[in-house]
Amino acid sequence: MKFKRTERIGAIVKILSDNPNKIYTLSYFTEKFNAAKSTISEDLLVVKNVFEKLQLGKVITISGAAGGVKYIPKTSKEENNSFLMELCEKISSNDRILSGRFLYLIDLIYDPTVVAKVGKIFASNIDYSEADYVVTMETKGIPMALMTSKAMNLPLVIIRKDIKVSEGPTLSMTYVTGDNSKVQSMSLPRKAVKPGSKVILIDDFMRGGGTIKGMTQLMTEFGAEVIGTGVFITTSTPTEKLVDDYISLIEIDTEGNEINVKPNLKTFNYEYREDEIEEVMEHADEDEIDE
Amino acid sequence: MKFKRTERIGAIVKILSDNPNKIYTLSYFTEKFNAAKSTISEDLLVVKNVFEKLQLGKVITISGAAGGVKYIPKTSKEENNSFLMELCEKISSNDRILSGRFLYLIDLIYDPTVVAKVGKIFASNIDYSEADYVVTMETKGIPMALMTSKAMNLPLVIIRKDIKVSEGPTLSMTYVTGDNSKVQSMSLPRKAVKPGSKVILIDDFMRGGGTIKGMTQLMTEFGAEVIGTGVFITTSTPTEKLVDDYISLIEIDTEGNEINVKPNLKTFNYEYREDEIEEVMEHADEDEIDE
Repeated sequence: MKFKRTERIGAIVKILSDNPNKIYTLSYFTEKFNAAKSTISEDLLVVKNVFEKLQLGKVITISGAAGGVKYIPKTSKEENNSFLMELCEKISSNDRILSGRFLYLIDLIYDPTVVAKVGKIFASNIDYSEADYVVTMETKGIPMALMTSKAMNLPLVIIRKDIKVSEGPTLSMTYVTGDNSKVQSMSLPRKAVKPGSKVILIDDFMRGGGTIKGMTQLMTEFGAEVIGTGVFITTSTPTEKLVDDYISLIEIDTEGNEINVKPNLKTFNYEYREDEIEEVMEHADEDEIDE
Repeated sequence: MKFKRTERIGAIVKILSDNPNKIYTLSYFTEKFNAAKSTISEDLLVVKNVFEKLQLGKVITISGAAGGVKYIPKTSKEENNSFLMELCEKISSNDRILSGRFLYLIDLIYDPTVVAKVGKIFASNIDYSEADYVVTMETKGIPMALMTSKAMNLPLVIIRKDIKVSEGPTLSMTYVTGDNSKVQSMSLPRKAVKPGSKVILIDDFMRGGGTIKGMTQLMTEFGAEVIGTGVFITTSTPTEKLVDDYISLIEIDTEGNEINVKPNLKTFNYEYREDEIEEVMEHADEDEIDE
């Protein structure tokens, strides 16, 4: 079968885009499209250009014997801005506030489109070049951790709260929540993480940092090292967390009468426009807690 | 900014492919690429052709006021064949057999590449045209349920085993496992599923069918209807399951001395080549259970 240039380019984009961080050799494409190396090289230049021009991520060339091309997901400043602002507006909506001052968030953190974007943002802002696994703890962080592992092309590891005998020999330990109020347990099969590994931790929510600290200790028990941590939402208090080396996308303040939700500026190395932040804050101010 | 045809086509493929089952209007693309409607229409014809020719799924046009184009993920026979055969080989590998005749599978069912493909296969073989949600029960089915919900462009709902007060008013019930050996509980916030909804159930493993039956009963309590069920692995015994309307991708027989793993032929409406099945079965026969 023969392919036109436009068809080859469409197909290359689809293949690279579906498989982030996976290296494809030039011969993979020459065989698939029954085309010369020079033809595919020209196609790849166009593909690179598409990704750059539309800020869809990066397509890079790796030289050498194991060489080829791969697609690295990267979100743009504009994309992060509008996505996080929109999320903050949704989160600060009045009907999310439950009695006990909890926020109903599972429709957002299970939404495949939202978590796909969150995964790409984590992959754009955490250095995973040396990582072997993405690690999360059940349950609510799993969807975004999976999408992060997809963007990073790394296996996902899920720490369980209970011991599951059906997974073989398992390492279990307890940890204390950030506010010292509870002792929780976590467990993971011995086979799940190889000694000497480097891991990225992902979780949906952090108040005191007890869970992330516990996960870090569990990794130490496996002889593994945490080299990056991504949290979706952090609370503004306590200001002192049990962990300090993490990025978080959204900060929530539920201490006062209003719930304030804002994108976490510290995470990104660029400034938000003042009016964008103002807009979100104003919106949040309108929401009175109904108790 | 102006775009060349090849660039527009690359970009359209990326956008459609990243957002399955989402409708994009012609004007979305004319504005994005600063191009005439006729130009974009021609681009879309090329894009359709790429997807057809390389069996990457379908791009369809929806006419009318809410019209536009959307991408529907579809896996090809060849893709299903080679993917499931490869998985069956991996599953029947000797080092997966744990004491108690359990199989270690979490590296596979948490693998982002594996579950992305599983999600596309479910979306290709379950009719979700009227569905409102994809529903699963924690924990091991979550990754493949998320990828199914992404392919179907539907929200994901996760049933919890414990009651979580932090999610607001919650409906809880008990169910009996398929072999009548255990009573388990499941719970879901009232807000998670709207009355009158239609849902697709996804789970990683089914022996007797008790969990799927329990999930179906829970959906009835929500006034929702199950219109399709996808299970990754079923066991060959008991042959009589508590549910009958489901598709399953892989069947495991752990009753004899050997563990037999094979693609579940009933799921697909086409025949597997005899030699492909033979090959997998032979491989499985070599694995003696080490007890």
